[in-house]
Amino acid sequence: MNDSNEYVYLDIKTLFNFMKDVFIAAGVPEADADICADVLIESDKRGIDSHGCARLYMYYMRIKRKQQLPVTKLTIVKETPGTIRLNANNGMGQVASKKAMQIAIDKAKKNGIGMAIVENSNHFGIAGYYVLMATKQDCIGMCGTNARPSIAPTWSVEPMLGTNPFTFGVPTDWDFPWIADHATSITQRGKIETYARLGKDAVKGWVIDENGNAATDSKQIITDMLKLKTALTPLGGIGEELGGHKGYNYATFVEIMSACLSQANMLQACLGLDKNGNFVPYNLGHFFIAIDPAAFCEIDAFKKKTGDLLRQLAGAKKQPGASHIYVAGEKEYLAYQERKRTGIPISRVTQRQFLKMQRELNLVQYDFAFDVDPDEEDVTGW
Amino acid sequence: MNDSNEYVYLDIKTLFNFMKDVFIAAGVPEADADICADVLIESDKRGIDSHGCARLYMYYMRIKRKQQLPVTKLTIVKETPGTIRLNANNGMGQVASKKAMQIAIDKAKKNGIGMAIVENSNHFGIAGYYVLMATKQDCIGMCGTNARPSIAPTWSVEPMLGTNPFTFGVPTDWDFPWIADHATSITQRGKIETYARLGKDAVKGWVIDENGNAATDSKQIITDMLKLKTALTPLGGIGEELGGHKGYNYATFVEIMSACLSQANMLQACLGLDKNGNFVPYNLGHFFIAIDPAAFCEIDAFKKKTGDLLRQLAGAKKQPGASHIYVAGEKEYLAYQERKRTGIPISRVTQRQFLKMQRELNLVQYDFAFDVDPDEEDVTGW
Repeated sequence: MNDSNEYVYLDIKTLFNFMKDVFIAAGVPEADADICADVLIESDKRGIDSHGCARLYMYYMRIKRKQQLPVTKLTIVKETPGTIRLNANNGMGQVASKKAMQIAIDKAKKNGIGMAIVENSNHFGIAGYYVLMATKQDCIGMCGTNARPSIAPTWSVEPMLGTNPFTFGVPTDWDFPWIADHATSITQRGKIETYARLGKDAVKGWVIDENGNAATDSKQIITDMLKLKTALTPLGGIGEELGGHKGYNYATFVEIMSACLSQANMLQACLGLDKNGNFVPYNLGHFFIAIDPAAFCEIDAFKKKTGDLLRQLAGAKKQPGASHIYVAGEKEYLAYQERKRTGIPISRVTQRQFLKMQRELNLVQYDFAFDVDPDEEDVTGW
Repeated sequence: MNDSNEYVYLDIKTLFNFMKDVFIAAGVPEADADICADVLIESDKRGIDSHGCARLYMYYMRIKRKQQLPVTKLTIVKETPGTIRLNANNGMGQVASKKAMQIAIDKAKKNGIGMAIVENSNHFGIAGYYVLMATKQDCIGMCGTNARPSIAPTWSVEPMLGTNPFTFGVPTDWDFPWIADHATSITQRGKIETYARLGKDAVKGWVIDENGNAATDSKQIITDMLKLKTALTPLGGIGEELGGHKGYNYATFVEIMSACLSQANMLQACLGLDKNGNFVPYNLGHFFIAIDPAAFCEIDAFKKKTGDLLRQLAGAKKQPGASHIYVAGEKEYLAYQERKRTGIPISRVTQRQFLKMQRELNLVQYDFAFDVDPDEEDVTGW
């Protein structure tokens, strides 16, 4: 992914400022723009290229075409000592979600465990951001969201379920928290979008077509997925023999938790398009759970024991030829160490999008050294 | 699995009574024996042959050799409004777990969400039993447990993590609740034990050997796994290309939740054997979370919407050649409908174990029509 012809590197601070300025210019209040840019830069810092600055243009376009609102009016629908149901009123998913997770954490600090759900929301960026919030406050975090229909149920070829991340964060005594942030599909749309940008084929088994065969043309997959003609496979793959039904069930649980406790859309209603192909609000749902380990034991003992557990895993006997056993969050931590030095790689597609937004929003204070044509067609079709 | 030469069918009531009587004769108090037998019969009713009466002899042997205690003294270590930490004092996992989940449900009814953990416990049967408790009381249930080391981390060949079920139950307006009850490995030890009893090979990809190759001899796998020479693969399989790291992370999260909030054993300390091969207590940990949908919305609206979600999934476009799209809990519900008529199939290995326990415990009131030799060697080596 680090082909120097493909990428220009921007330092983290400049990239953050540009993203924040785009959000502000698009109508997002400054404090909220700070949150939105922080969620995106966290993804870039962690090496998750599919969900960081590569998605800025997507949010920008959704605001521009009035599919989602730049101002987030977060209202309380229902509250108990341990739970809260919030309505994001079609505002920014990142803003609603950060506030929701903080409420869950605050409730966990009082009651041992807390949960928040959000309805009428939008794409919230990396789920990992919110469980990271929990770990920074010495809590265990869990969260999930539904999303545009992508995964076909086992024995089906139709995209029904979102990639529905089921995401966990745990504080440790390592230099970084344990963060498992991934879709319940084998892979996720953002990764195929990255492959499409790079002109790379998708791995066989990631996607099935209408006839139940494996699809590999990543650009075609993205186009067909919006028409519900290809689907991602659940973790475990096609059929049941290697556990595809388990991934399907995890995705379904996330969909239930995200959509069924509120008025959020579910399944194919999350397409963001009406029957005539017009853009409509996504009305996504999210859920956030925080657990305070101090409700069970001394927090330092918990972090030490979790750290020991990870040390034992990392020290297990290696597969012949393998050089390292990773624990969740380690690759992202290593990516950040590198990117602090190198800056964030910006792909040519993202460079074009940056120049378009810069021009449209008149952000003259940035002088990007991008050798691309902003008017060239965007392959990912936003 | 329904080869008539292999199986004798026992009606549900007789099987339940026998299991309960075995537990009582082994020293389990009658009310607790009722719980233990109920957990096992639920597995048999649901068609999960690996975790029902086929495991009775395992519990019996563990009690007999004083590895676990028949009397369950459940003590409170720490409690908050939303959480509780319990110590099972090496008693019956089923008894401690049923009580723990009920406390989590009671806390959810008061605070919206509740959580219980149990340490110093033992094998608790099917995880599905406890989330089913939640659904019967109109709650969402989640639970998990660690277990004997079985799963190798991604890029390792060493069994470190238990099969660590991560299990969910949701009430619906269908004839049955949505219950996703499965290991975070592709398959689980009990299934391979069933295959070993039937003399069937394990599916390629389920198990890796010391050299990183697929192992398929199911009897050998069970023997080698106790010696930590073969390992189950996490959901997603070997390596990362098809998401094996996701299954590894889910298994790890369950291990953390089960063991790190308390003094429970973790990873290879859960083997039940000391370095000299002597039996020692397992000291397993479990966790239970209950969520009250009524804290968020009307319970009937929740069940209806979840039901609609499942109806949409079941009605999705089928893969060519597929006859039905299942939702979680459906196969188990169908199994129960059949087994109400046919009774529960008892394998020849289980028949031998039944006759051994009947003889040793002098349970003369049962007259089983089993044409097997109770003294024949038990292939699964308990």
